[in-house]
Amino acid sequence: MNRHIQVGVIGAGYWGPKLIRNFQEIPDAAMTMVCDLEEDRLTHIKELYPAVRATKDYREVLASDVDAVAIATPIPTHHQLAKEALLAGKHVLVEKPLTANSEQAEELVELAAQTGLTLMVGHTFEYNPAVEYLRRLVASGEMGRIYYINATRVNLGIFQPDINVVWDLAPHDVSILMFILGMVPVNVSARGGSYVQRRIHDVAYLTLHFPDEILADVRVSWLDPCKIRRITVVGSKKMVVYDDVEPTEKVKLYDKGVDVPPYSDTLEEFHLSYRYGDITTPAIPSAEPLRLECEHFLHCVRTGDKPRSDGQDGLEVVRILEAATRSLLNGGMRENVRL
Amino acid sequence: MNRHIQVGVIGAGYWGPKLIRNFQEIPDAAMTMVCDLEEDRLTHIKELYPAVRATKDYREVLASDVDAVAIATPIPTHHQLAKEALLAGKHVLVEKPLTANSEQAEELVELAAQTGLTLMVGHTFEYNPAVEYLRRLVASGEMGRIYYINATRVNLGIFQPDINVVWDLAPHDVSILMFILGMVPVNVSARGGSYVQRRIHDVAYLTLHFPDEILADVRVSWLDPCKIRRITVVGSKKMVVYDDVEPTEKVKLYDKGVDVPPYSDTLEEFHLSYRYGDITTPAIPSAEPLRLECEHFLHCVRTGDKPRSDGQDGLEVVRILEAATRSLLNGGMRENVRL
Amino acid sequence: MNRHIQVGVIGAGYWGPKLIRNFQEIPDAAMTMVCDLEEDRLTHIKELYPAVRATKDYREVLASDVDAVAIATPIPTHHQLAKEALLAGKHVLVEKPLTANSEQAEELVELAAQTGLTLMVGHTFEYNPAVEYLRRLVASGEMGRIYYINATRVNLGIFQPDINVVWDLAPHDVSILMFILGMVPVNVSARGGSYVQRRIHDVAYLTLHFPDEILADVRVSWLDPCKIRRITVVGSKKMVVYDDVEPTEKVKLYDKGVDVPPYSDTLEEFHLSYRYGDITTPAIPSAEPLRLECEHFLHCVRTGDKPRSDGQDGLEVVRILEAATRSLLNGGMRENVRL
Amino acid sequence: MNRHIQVGVIGAGYWGPKLIRNFQEIPDAAMTMVCDLEEDRLTHIKELYPAVRATKDYREVLASDVDAVAIATPIPTHHQLAKEALLAGKHVLVEKPLTANSEQAEELVELAAQTGLTLMVGHTFEYNPAVEYLRRLVASGEMGRIYYINATRVNLGIFQPDINVVWDLAPHDVSILMFILGMVPVNVSARGGSYVQRRIHDVAYLTLHFPDEILADVRVSWLDPCKIRRITVVGSKKMVVYDDVEPTEKVKLYDKGVDVPPYSDTLEEFHLSYRYGDITTPAIPSAEPLRLECEHFLHCVRTGDKPRSDGQDGLEVVRILEAATRSLLNGGMRENVRL
Repeated sequence: MNRHIQVGVIGAGYWGPKLIRNFQEIPDAAMTMVCDLEEDRLTHIKELYPAVRATKDYREVLASDVDAVAIATPIPTHHQLAKEALLAGKHVLVEKPLTANSEQAEELVELAAQTGLTLMVGHTFEYNPAVEYLRRLVASGEMGRIYYINATRVNLGIFQPDINVVWDLAPHDVSILMFILGMVPVNVSARGGSYVQRRIHDVAYLTLHFPDEILADVRVSWLDPCKIRRITVVGSKKMVVYDDVEPTEKVKLYDKGVDVPPYSDTLEEFHLSYRYGDITTPAIPSAEPLRLECEHFLHCVRTGDKPRSDGQDGLEVVRILEAATRSLLNGGMRENVRL
Repeated sequence: MNRHIQVGVIGAGYWGPKLIRNFQEIPDAAMTMVCDLEEDRLTHIKELYPAVRATKDYREVLASDVDAVAIATPIPTHHQLAKEALLAGKHVLVEKPLTANSEQAEELVELAAQTGLTLMVGHTFEYNPAVEYLRRLVASGEMGRIYYINATRVNLGIFQPDINVVWDLAPHDVSILMFILGMVPVNVSARGGSYVQRRIHDVAYLTLHFPDEILADVRVSWLDPCKIRRITVVGSKKMVVYDDVEPTEKVKLYDKGVDVPPYSDTLEEFHLSYRYGDITTPAIPSAEPLRLECEHFLHCVRTGDKPRSDGQDGLEVVRILEAATRSLLNGGMRENVRL
Repeated sequence: MNRHIQVGVIGAGYWGPKLIRNFQEIPDAAMTMVCDLEEDRLTHIKELYPAVRATKDYREVLASDVDAVAIATPIPTHHQLAKEALLAGKHVLVEKPLTANSEQAEELVELAAQTGLTLMVGHTFEYNPAVEYLRRLVASGEMGRIYYINATRVNLGIFQPDINVVWDLAPHDVSILMFILGMVPVNVSARGGSYVQRRIHDVAYLTLHFPDEILADVRVSWLDPCKIRRITVVGSKKMVVYDDVEPTEKVKLYDKGVDVPPYSDTLEEFHLSYRYGDITTPAIPSAEPLRLECEHFLHCVRTGDKPRSDGQDGLEVVRILEAATRSLLNGGMRENVRL
Repeated sequence: MNRHIQVGVIGAGYWGPKLIRNFQEIPDAAMTMVCDLEEDRLTHIKELYPAVRATKDYREVLASDVDAVAIATPIPTHHQLAKEALLAGKHVLVEKPLTANSEQAEELVELAAQTGLTLMVGHTFEYNPAVEYLRRLVASGEMGRIYYINATRVNLGIFQPDINVVWDLAPHDVSILMFILGMVPVNVSARGGSYVQRRIHDVAYLTLHFPDEILADVRVSWLDPCKIRRITVVGSKKMVVYDDVEPTEKVKLYDKGVDVPPYSDTLEEFHLSYRYGDITTPAIPSAEPLRLECEHFLHCVRTGDKPRSDGQDGLEVVRILEAATRSLLNGGMRENVRL
């Protein structure tokens, strides 16, 4: 495939136009078609990119000669659209979360395997250079044994009508956690509240238990006065904070810790020593994660390589969201991710 | 009682010297006696305050003519010392938490009622002007209905050998929550990890359910690279953040919210409107909370007034810590505060 | 003029594309022509906006039927291009600073008056909602008498080959100062250093004396590790800080001051009282200043209204930069703005 | 001198009690006498330190057997008190600035040399671990050639009745600049305003020219809504910021710069490359600078070593303050430090 990869985007609401802009700017792709149910969205896209063909019927996209389809529609439609796209022989990039439940995700994973097509989910943060830095840092062993992770992702808005805050915001943190730890959690529990809309949680707290006694706590909210996007990873040798709201110094690596003596007795606590070393803000290249994600998708389409955030990754995230939902409804009890 | 109130302090480790300094500086109190098991602590206090009598035997303090006793010893000793002090006719100020379990706290509350003596627990933050501001703000109704509260109290150190991080740090947040809401939580759940010391949790997450569907989430840790002491209260009309680490602008009141239409239908979500108004940092007088606490204790001793943080308040906090401990050990299930 | 205003942009380097994007997005303008000397810049613009005509010869733009021309070329070319454009009957928007010296600026101001055409300079910050807030605040008298202003605009890069940091960065601050005070400074002094490039100052300090003993101090640098864009206005009743780097809380109004007693004697200083009141972050609408600037330009073209940042405003700024340059070269002595 | 060094403190207003506390706490010193003109100040000190002898007549201190005298009185009295103390055979520590003019300072320096007694000035920041770090960093060459330094020291209050803001705040920055550069400036210019008190500057801007074209700009103000104490040192290889208001991360070292090509031609600017490397917050021990200063004074008294901030250092600072004052009065012209 030496020619440009022809891309069609289905859904031009909030996220779609960002995908369109990126595919438009990447040299070896051709942003060919766009589909949306609303006329004015299509008109807007046509004004920006007169060469793009617009349609209200997604089947026209699937019937066209585009090589790949990016799906940025409401979550309940992900499964059907992705399934038809794969059956039509198109490579597929689906916005997160992959589907509305795990059965749907499993079906897509299987279908992608059968057809040999690329199935990728838009876990954008896995393409964020700061998150990649964290993954390499953890993998290098420099932080020692990983103890636990705190994550906070809160803001005022944007409320969703059809999904709760767990399905809206937690996919970011869950995919980051699995990516930097290289592990899937064993179980998850969740608590939360529904304040503005009836029966739709706008605040939630998730606790995930990973193997090796690694704990992760995630706070998500649409109802906080401040925009906070912060992840703290605590290891036995070093600690690191990733603050995505910081304009330049997003990552700080702390040479801090508590040194435990090699032996232990009933008075071990008196031997603890605190270590307060340098703090380093590594120089991390600034690049738009969505651009890197789109490029990675095109690379996988071209080469057949397995995407970093492939269907299986998307399936794992959906399973965790399902388990968290069960926990929300049963009083916060731990729910196994694998039933 | 027109003369100075004579005060004895039992325990001169980390917190005791702060109590001694404050009682020393308050004009209508006389810092009379100090007791500690370690000779060098007593020597140090004597150098600073030559007029204070020092002893290694707390019974000498109880047998003396001091009017009141402040207890700043390890938690397991609180009950016995406070009980003997009350029986010896002394007014008592006990460091938080009041006792190691609720039976002990109940006994002290009853004993104080029988003897008519003042029993107060050192929930210092209830005397913090910023926390008082929050209480008045919530009570005024200016914030509307209270939805939920997030609290974070983390730092590197100071590890305790005999109690976990819940008993060490959470009393601050729990007493603040009850004070500003004017309510006792119905149930609590907790999760956490023990990383540095075996079987002693150094990281914990508490979720408290208050009446009226008010939720509170508390993060405490001895193992975080940053010192964070932050409480966010979200109401239907306003939101407020209290950041105790900020040197000057500790409280920020946000005129922010999501306005819900008075009627509702299946499309209610499309009518949500976000409100982004002014942010105000109120001028709050800076005063040392411990000084205010000590003055309040002396006031109650003199007048017989019920302390703001009385024995009952201390008992409620201990019950919540017990429930949190049960939850920590049973996988994070909700535990009722009242058994 | 009911039809769309036809706009041509000359210069498509760093700033030109931002102008092009804005004129493209404004409904009642038509982005018609673009001119640049470099082929690849034109190609890039054509890719983004296929309908725009591109040329390497600015005379084609002037000979076309565009109503207005926006000039975003190197400073030494501003005068000649703007002059020819006015003579060709075009309305003109010139990037700041208006010209390379005051004689050139005076000629353009006169030419605009003679032709009745709109001449506007791109002092973008005068269209910034936060700066407008400051202007209204100062004008309202709420701050009392204005004492002095500190401004800092520093960063690492972007070094200019043909102008120094005073001509590159100080136009922003100087235009802001004149706009919010509604005054022109009487004199200016400047000091600085040339570290990276010979004879081109990369660091400079300006002090401006305004009427009524109002002082303003401006720090500009291309050689600072941090991006700082901060202006502090101190009045007798209130003080305000505008921090353009803050993502959301850009303006903070401090109800702080020193109250001077109405009488005075030799011990007046003992009567000073400090006032520490509330701090308010006003809700300021977020809008792209350049968009507002372009809309204002189109409005003036359409109505004949005098632009906020008209040629006279641009001339005053150039006179101040000239005076600062003289001061830089004479050891930092005060130079009158009007010779 | 194996016994404790006997210390008397003259002046127990704002700074004196801090000196008293430190000398009280240092093991090998004896805080023996205190002198103040106000009875209630003496009463207060006696309450805190019953063993200290108090007097209203400084001649009693000089006539006593104290070995050393610390002077924390208003500046106009420094010279007379220090002179009499030296003549009485006492080692002397004088608060900054050393004297009210350079003739007085020269006389003290000479007198100290003649008597062989220790004369030290309280430039506290020279004993601040963060400032020591800066000095070592600059001296190591790691930053490359030093280009320039920006310093800001502003706050609301505390207004002084007898001296202006230059004499009150600038001694800190001037002594820091000379200490970290290891140089004395050649000339200085200053501008400022007198807003609250007549003829007493409450805002000032100083520019200092050091050898090797090193420039330093200092902003001082008693009339700013924010407390800022920040110093930026820019070198050809690295840049460093010292922010004294930061609670923990006071120093940040930036591996940033602009790399200039080794050759040069008319287009050199196109070869400039920006370097954005890691940022490091070094672990700097936290110690009270005044404690270190007092210990250093006692060390010099005991050993005869030359103090880091000796009389000559104090004299240089006074000369710079004098030159700045002359510049303030002559319209901001450069004034040589050495006449």
